[in-house]
Amino acid sequence: MSKIAPLSGFPELLPSQRAVEREVIASLSRTFELHGFANIETRVVEPIDRLAKGGEVDKEIYVLQRINAEADAKAELGLHFDLTVPFARYVLEHAGHLEFPFRRFQVQPAWRGERPQEGRYRQFTQADVDVVGRDELPFHHDVEVMSVMVDALGRLPIPRVSFQFNNRKLIQGFYRGLGIEDVTDAIRVIDKLDKLPADEVARMLVERVGTTPEQAQRCLELATIRVGDSSFVEQVRALGVSDELLEQGLDELAAVVEGCRAVAGDRVGVEANLRIARGLDYYTGTVVEIFMEGYERLKSVGGGGRYDALASDGRTTYPGVGVSFGVSRTLVPLIADGVLAGGRSVPSAVLVALNTEDERTASTAVATALRSRDIACEVAPSPAKFGKQIRFAERRGIPYVWFLQGDGTSQVKDIRTGEQVDADPASWTPPAADLRPAVISTAARHDSSTTPEHEENQ
Amino acid sequence: MSKIAPLSGFPELLPSQRAVEREVIASLSRTFELHGFANIETRVVEPIDRLAKGGEVDKEIYVLQRINAEADAKAELGLHFDLTVPFARYVLEHAGHLEFPFRRFQVQPAWRGERPQEGRYRQFTQADVDVVGRDELPFHHDVEVMSVMVDALGRLPIPRVSFQFNNRKLIQGFYRGLGIEDVTDAIRVIDKLDKLPADEVARMLVERVGTTPEQAQRCLELATIRVGDSSFVEQVRALGVSDELLEQGLDELAAVVEGCRAVAGDRVGVEANLRIARGLDYYTGTVVEIFMEGYERLKSVGGGGRYDALASDGRTTYPGVGVSFGVSRTLVPLIADGVLAGGRSVPSAVLVALNTEDERTASTAVATALRSRDIACEVAPSPAKFGKQIRFAERRGIPYVWFLQGDGTSQVKDIRTGEQVDADPASWTPPAADLRPAVISTAARHDSSTTPEHEENQ
Repeated sequence: MSKIAPLSGFPELLPSQRAVEREVIASLSRTFELHGFANIETRVVEPIDRLAKGGEVDKEIYVLQRINAEADAKAELGLHFDLTVPFARYVLEHAGHLEFPFRRFQVQPAWRGERPQEGRYRQFTQADVDVVGRDELPFHHDVEVMSVMVDALGRLPIPRVSFQFNNRKLIQGFYRGLGIEDVTDAIRVIDKLDKLPADEVARMLVERVGTTPEQAQRCLELATIRVGDSSFVEQVRALGVSDELLEQGLDELAAVVEGCRAVAGDRVGVEANLRIARGLDYYTGTVVEIFMEGYERLKSVGGGGRYDALASDGRTTYPGVGVSFGVSRTLVPLIADGVLAGGRSVPSAVLVALNTEDERTASTAVATALRSRDIACEVAPSPAKFGKQIRFAERRGIPYVWFLQGDGTSQVKDIRTGEQVDADPASWTPPAADLRPAVISTAARHDSSTTPEHEENQ
Repeated sequence: MSKIAPLSGFPELLPSQRAVEREVIASLSRTFELHGFANIETRVVEPIDRLAKGGEVDKEIYVLQRINAEADAKAELGLHFDLTVPFARYVLEHAGHLEFPFRRFQVQPAWRGERPQEGRYRQFTQADVDVVGRDELPFHHDVEVMSVMVDALGRLPIPRVSFQFNNRKLIQGFYRGLGIEDVTDAIRVIDKLDKLPADEVARMLVERVGTTPEQAQRCLELATIRVGDSSFVEQVRALGVSDELLEQGLDELAAVVEGCRAVAGDRVGVEANLRIARGLDYYTGTVVEIFMEGYERLKSVGGGGRYDALASDGRTTYPGVGVSFGVSRTLVPLIADGVLAGGRSVPSAVLVALNTEDERTASTAVATALRSRDIACEVAPSPAKFGKQIRFAERRGIPYVWFLQGDGTSQVKDIRTGEQVDADPASWTPPAADLRPAVISTAARHDSSTTPEHEENQ
């Protein structure tokens, strides 16, 4: 028997921490649903050839085998490593039963066999929203799906996040207008700007992509444009490159930035950042990466964009646009740092005390009466003196202890204030804030939020 | 590339069906929380030696390997096949941070590589509730945890379920009092009563377990006792066997049956059925299997019981009692049979129509106003004539279509009744029943329920 020890890369939450994660997922789900996105779950396995199609990802797949399979049996299934590949397959498999445009959200774990580090786990939960069309998908859905995620993250009790948008048409049109032939390769090199100094990236553009030094310089100038509104349009035009695709990209990016600014409150930043490329993926228009203030070391906590062919079965093509938020990548570090904590380890708002074991039936009747009015509670596991009951509740964060008196009446004590009052199980109700475990957030310190109601008990 | 085809044993739900599953899980979770049970999730993988310890289950484990692992690399991890093994490991791993008795519920998928059939899948979701103590766990928790599941299943819009209880102490004490030496082996044989005729089971008891024909006859008599109250106590005593453990088992079983009867409404049956043994598992007291009326072919849809050693690390033992409900095993057949259906395929209660693409901003403003009052809605993807907008909503089950008039006022139409009224996006609200997708259940036909509010929109 293996010793009990944590498995690296497979973080688990304690009950009060899990309560935080549940509230965050519930809040995200409520926002997605308000915008008309339907929830689905996909099976966690896909055929290996479907998982392996995307470039280099096959290195990190976990494959499955029945333990008693024959030694030379070929493994056919693997665990999904994101929620996009299974969603694309779901659309193809169930297209005949879906209505398009199809808006879906999906909150599920995914798995990668990569080396664990902060924010990167072998099992991690993601929350994805996508809109997918059949044959066509108008551009306004780009604005829609990005606005939904802006709205959703703005309601979470986490540090301020920043959406950094770009557009592949803009980049490709600019490079094409400059006369660069291998646009894809140039994007791959520019993508290294977050790891390498600018002059080294310029040299690589010349040596590896074959640009002139002047072309390389313009690419770098484009990549340094970063503004919080649509003024990037004039800045790009000032670079003097003219191309039809570039113009289309500028229009689209301006629409996404302005559309998202319209719904972003104080807790969400929206920028055009012309260095963002998401080079390894098959995006064809809008691209986005999401960063969290004070947690830049995690790199992006979310991202996404537009695919002209999210899925295709040879006859029909399904374009899509979507964005993914890393629930585990965000919450596990925030919980570890104490930025987010759960208010209590149990759902119970009330501990019904027990004087003697003979009175369990009476105490259970009190609990039943409270539950019939949606007040979560538990009966003490064993009879104990007053002080021990209080400490039992304290250790779990239960705010109220209910005492049955000898004469059949009751009193309830708020153990935080010490206040004790007469109470009737048929009518006593705690304040709404005590009904469910609160989410305690110090995230407001990281930003200039003026909406404290977002920080507790979402 | 593999062709798109369903994977046998991995059922997936369409959006309106998934809405049913979500409402069922939300209802279960609410009930569990009202009783003070905290939610946890465990990682989906466990070390293989931990998964393999329980008898014959190792045949069905899926093991994991990184796709690029060396050919002779030994697989070390497997997917969990239930939620009990990972819960026991979680308790051992995190014991220093948990408060005991620890009440938890867990709703997650599990995986078994067995041959798929109706109600038996390779990936399936379970909902488990358990109470675990450190060193000791008073018996009253058996009554508690079973009552919680009775309460939870009674609130679901499914056919009537029946909890069939027994107690291992009762069986063991009875067999011991009869003078049978190998009690475990006798239980295994009696367990075959649902597949073999009684006289064949009696012969096996004589030939394989070494009982006398008289002992075998008494075992069969015990196993045929099945009543809906505690009158089984007198029926067992009439068999004339006397044993201390038997008496304890009778007391416990009577307490569980009476405790559960007290909370069971019309939609849940509670019985003592002295043939239930759950022979392959390590139960030490209360045992239960749950059946669903009209779906006896699925065998049990849930089960559980008492373990004196749910987990142990050599120094400390953690006794537990719990019960598991098969969410997929129950819902997938009910949905396939049309007993359960979702009311619509999208969360939207309102489709905001669009006259021309230029008016998208105005329509989006209406949607934003509705969302600010928690009314889920979507804006039409493209401008279209009146009739086409109605049909768009109809196909998705969206009950209301919102029309912006040329003069800036609005009207909203209930497309089910055709009624169309003036409406203000700042104040119009649909009836509560239309806010979320309803769960449509015909389960009431299967039973004598008088609580129709349980059948819709849990």
